[in-house]
Amino acid sequence: MSETLRIAKVYICNNYFTGIPKLTDFQVVEETLGTLNEGDYLVEAKFIRISPDPSEITPNSTPKAFQLARIVESRNPSFYVDDFVVGDFGWRTHTIVRAGTIVEGLQPYVLPEIGPVPKSYGVGLFGVPGIAAYFGLLKVCEVKEGDVIVVSSAAGAVGSCAGQIARIKGCKIIGITSSEEKCAWLKELHFDHCINYKTDDITTKLKEYAPEGVDCYFDNVGGEISSAVIYEMKQHGRICINGATSLYYNEEKKASEVQSPIKMKMVRMEGMNVSRYEDDWYQGLYRNYQWYFEGVLKCKETFIEKFESTSQTFIDVLNGKYFGNVMIKL
Amino acid sequence: MSETLRIAKVYICNNYFTGIPKLTDFQVVEETLGTLNEGDYLVEAKFIRISPDPSEITPNSTPKAFQLARIVESRNPSFYVDDFVVGDFGWRTHTIVRAGTIVEGLQPYVLPEIGPVPKSYGVGLFGVPGIAAYFGLLKVCEVKEGDVIVVSSAAGAVGSCAGQIARIKGCKIIGITSSEEKCAWLKELHFDHCINYKTDDITTKLKEYAPEGVDCYFDNVGGEISSAVIYEMKQHGRICINGATSLYYNEEKKASEVQSPIKMKMVRMEGMNVSRYEDDWYQGLYRNYQWYFEGVLKCKETFIEKFESTSQTFIDVLNGKYFGNVMIKL
Repeated sequence: MSETLRIAKVYICNNYFTGIPKLTDFQVVEETLGTLNEGDYLVEAKFIRISPDPSEITPNSTPKAFQLARIVESRNPSFYVDDFVVGDFGWRTHTIVRAGTIVEGLQPYVLPEIGPVPKSYGVGLFGVPGIAAYFGLLKVCEVKEGDVIVVSSAAGAVGSCAGQIARIKGCKIIGITSSEEKCAWLKELHFDHCINYKTDDITTKLKEYAPEGVDCYFDNVGGEISSAVIYEMKQHGRICINGATSLYYNEEKKASEVQSPIKMKMVRMEGMNVSRYEDDWYQGLYRNYQWYFEGVLKCKETFIEKFESTSQTFIDVLNGKYFGNVMIKL
Repeated sequence: MSETLRIAKVYICNNYFTGIPKLTDFQVVEETLGTLNEGDYLVEAKFIRISPDPSEITPNSTPKAFQLARIVESRNPSFYVDDFVVGDFGWRTHTIVRAGTIVEGLQPYVLPEIGPVPKSYGVGLFGVPGIAAYFGLLKVCEVKEGDVIVVSSAAGAVGSCAGQIARIKGCKIIGITSSEEKCAWLKELHFDHCINYKTDDITTKLKEYAPEGVDCYFDNVGGEISSAVIYEMKQHGRICINGATSLYYNEEKKASEVQSPIKMKMVRMEGMNVSRYEDDWYQGLYRNYQWYFEGVLKCKETFIEKFESTSQTFIDVLNGKYFGNVMIKL
């Protein structure tokens, strides 16, 4: 990267927004990068994963997001030029990773050898969404053979992966999603049942598909959908709260209370963040990799061209436009 | 007990009620008891504990409730006449415990020797409420020295005990209750702070009393009080859901959603029922007994005379009239 390229394009969230953001809530600015000191390295974004999580977005700063990025210059002996790095670099084209910087959450890491698999999987099935599904399902939900599992936002990057891993583990899988088209895809992934929350009554369908109750709930949405599921849990059911997308951009922050069914059924509900499993990261990564090669774990990727499409893509993701993992491709 | 006494007085809940029940929702009937077969024994209620839990009340049947009862006749070699038994016998004066009956929840057990302590403690500090406090706090909340704990319904039988055990364990205790009088009592029990939810803003007070957040929440009430506490939890905070009294008899079943803070802070919330700890029961019982004798664990008991006061007392308990453990004394 020549000196003239030491300009990064960077998104800034202009102001605090409520509800779904508008394009004007974001702007792209240019940032002049400094020089590399001993231990630093410079990365160039190849794929920026678009997540609906609002905790990534703070006014007057750059939205957070995981990238698969290529190292273009390095003064760090552990990070070689042309290696691919996975890191929470945000909505920006170039980033200098400074030596000794303490990162909240996950440290950037070099993507291990994944053979002929598209590198983009490094921020999908083998990255944060795939790892969240793996540990959320196995460590938080503690699924076992024969369990009845409900997954919300089941056609999303995490949900679709969680459902398939549950199937691999011998569970019965019920997905909840927002369209017939998404339901059809979940059937292709061998989900046992699909509930379209826009047209089906969740409680009625759950009583039909899980007449003895739900053992595990892998929750990505929160709100009334989740309350309905939680009232159908079995004794000692387990809930992994991986997200609450229905609530993030919604003014209505109230939902049917969940303490009564949690108390009555002695349910355990736990919040999930992948950074908690950083020490076991490669276990999740290689397990997903192995299942992928066995043909039992699939993922769907959507690539949107151009860095300048990032804010529109984020809005589209919030509106449920896509399936699977959505990435800006640079 | 002579043959003429083989008549039990028994409450029946007449019909399904919503909101706080009325006296007319209950009636007392007489029930003729059968004879004892091999393995059976007959008990006479001495204290009936009044709990606000609605899962104990089903239309057209006898409300459930723990009793301390005296054995008046026995054909079971493990249960001697004049021994005291703790069991979920319900709102009734006399009960034949049939051999081999499978009990949902806790099996009746003979109250172990508790020396000079009032026998009523067998359904208080050394019974279900004390044991719920013990295991809820130590096993579900997993408190440790230095933790900041919030207890709701803190002047109740379970809450007051949970707060005191947390103090014994070196925690900072914040109680939430409904009156200045109850707050004054909690101060006597050495709670560090008390929030009167009828006059104080819970969030403001929690930010003052727990500026770095709440490690553990021992919850007896649910609803908006609990949502307010959950938004102030620390990373990896733990919540024991022991009850949801604010919701049981309230038409408004919605509350500010809790999934977002649970996700963001990786909080664990778990429903508690003492029957889960049946195998470890005597550990909890003797630990509370020991603390009681050391003078660090106190309880308050309210006795209401006469079996026929049971339904009115239940209504009074729901309306928050009493502190501590409330019992019908026969």
